[in-house]
Amino acid sequence: MNAPVQDTIMLLGDSLTQGASVPYGFAQRLSYVYNRKLDVVNRGFSGYNTEWSLPVFRQCLAKRTGSDADLQFPKVQLLTIWFGANDACIPPSPQHVPLSRFTELVTEIVRTIKSPTSPYHAPWTRIIILTAPPVNTYQRGADLAARDPPRALDRLFEVTKQYAVAAREVGETEGVPVVDVWTMLWEACGKEERKLARYLYDGLHVNEEAYGLIYDAIMRTINANWPEFMPDRLPMVFPPWAEIGFENPQLEKRALFHDASS
Amino acid sequence: MNAPVQDTIMLLGDSLTQGASVPYGFAQRLSYVYNRKLDVVNRGFSGYNTEWSLPVFRQCLAKRTGSDADLQFPKVQLLTIWFGANDACIPPSPQHVPLSRFTELVTEIVRTIKSPTSPYHAPWTRIIILTAPPVNTYQRGADLAARDPPRALDRLFEVTKQYAVAAREVGETEGVPVVDVWTMLWEACGKEERKLARYLYDGLHVNEEAYGLIYDAIMRTINANWPEFMPDRLPMVFPPWAEIGFENPQLEKRALFHDASS
Repeated sequence: MNAPVQDTIMLLGDSLTQGASVPYGFAQRLSYVYNRKLDVVNRGFSGYNTEWSLPVFRQCLAKRTGSDADLQFPKVQLLTIWFGANDACIPPSPQHVPLSRFTELVTEIVRTIKSPTSPYHAPWTRIIILTAPPVNTYQRGADLAARDPPRALDRLFEVTKQYAVAAREVGETEGVPVVDVWTMLWEACGKEERKLARYLYDGLHVNEEAYGLIYDAIMRTINANWPEFMPDRLPMVFPPWAEIGFENPQLEKRALFHDASS
Repeated sequence: MNAPVQDTIMLLGDSLTQGASVPYGFAQRLSYVYNRKLDVVNRGFSGYNTEWSLPVFRQCLAKRTGSDADLQFPKVQLLTIWFGANDACIPPSPQHVPLSRFTELVTEIVRTIKSPTSPYHAPWTRIIILTAPPVNTYQRGADLAARDPPRALDRLFEVTKQYAVAAREVGETEGVPVVDVWTMLWEACGKEERKLARYLYDGLHVNEEAYGLIYDAIMRTINANWPEFMPDRLPMVFPPWAEIGFENPQLEKRALFHDASS
């Protein structure tokens, strides 16, 4: 059985997060730079909205008991929360979540970790909210029209933008840093919807180049908010081989963090 | 805290395993194809030999109690064991492990999982042994000579081959499937040492193309030995979104395995 030797970085979201395990996706890149320090767990659920994700998220967490039993679970040291792309589907899509409810649910996901009254309260967890990317309705419409049977456009540019703004506002209200993917990609394409094709391979999902921008923004956000959490500031859990001490090898697991909150 | 919702694939080894988290490395690829089914934990330790890795490996495992406490730990459903590249260093390198001791240690790593008397006994764990890649001593020698200060060649072609053969023999003796990386790369380059440069970027470490061959061989080995473990044969832990049931959402975690041994 797998012992909790490394704490984790948990990536919560929809297909945009699930897909981040591709080469150069931010799941792959975080795994690489935090190798021997933290394990990356991808909890991206393709097609899920926030309504379905909240109960699933709770199952992905262990309840805190305050006893030694807690030591059996890896701590989530960093959590990314990335929703909105499916919530913003137009009714009657079953994926649609009303905007005000979306705000409630993202807030509830954050408070599941941050609220002292939550059974999953984890004061050590660093949180980053990401906003949904802009939709290229030209590309998305063509993609859906080409299916068998053809399907009508299911997302609108201005609606998805509202969900991105709402996610950003939850970050501001809750004091959680935000990677504003919507604005970043919109500005990167010169605010021309058709030019989003550079970053979205089907009008909805980001490609390798966009994942690169997102990874870089995540690392800037870590550096700005928790510089002690940058990969090169963290020791390895097990010693680098040159430090083992060959006459009398020291191979004990080491603690990465010594903060009072944990 | 991180609940044990997904079992794991543990990758144990040296820098060849640690580096497998690069784009197109087998850690990245396994993460991608087993997404929403199993978590991949990279336990590759750059520079480590089997002597140092055995005690570290034990720390990476939870002892089995036979009680409900065991349910708190993810099960290792697949374990890859890849050593030899450092053990084969020429004395007086501190990384050198005598060949007979290497055989003992790889055997001990396997039996840590497979022996019913081991506190880490895990009859459910599928194991694959990989053999060290061949060394390109032309490339490796040039790399070391170019360092400041210059270093002498630390590995020999025929010696590393012996460690690869020894690892393969442990697989045969212990009944563990083997991915014979040594033979695969040697044959792929037409059995010409200099042509190994196609697969080794520094004479020792494999590049993206070699990782691709290794990943393919791992998947063939899984398919040949445990076809039920192929990614497309495993359900998702949480339901695919189209199966949620929108009127009365079913979002419970599901069991991936129902084998009697677990």
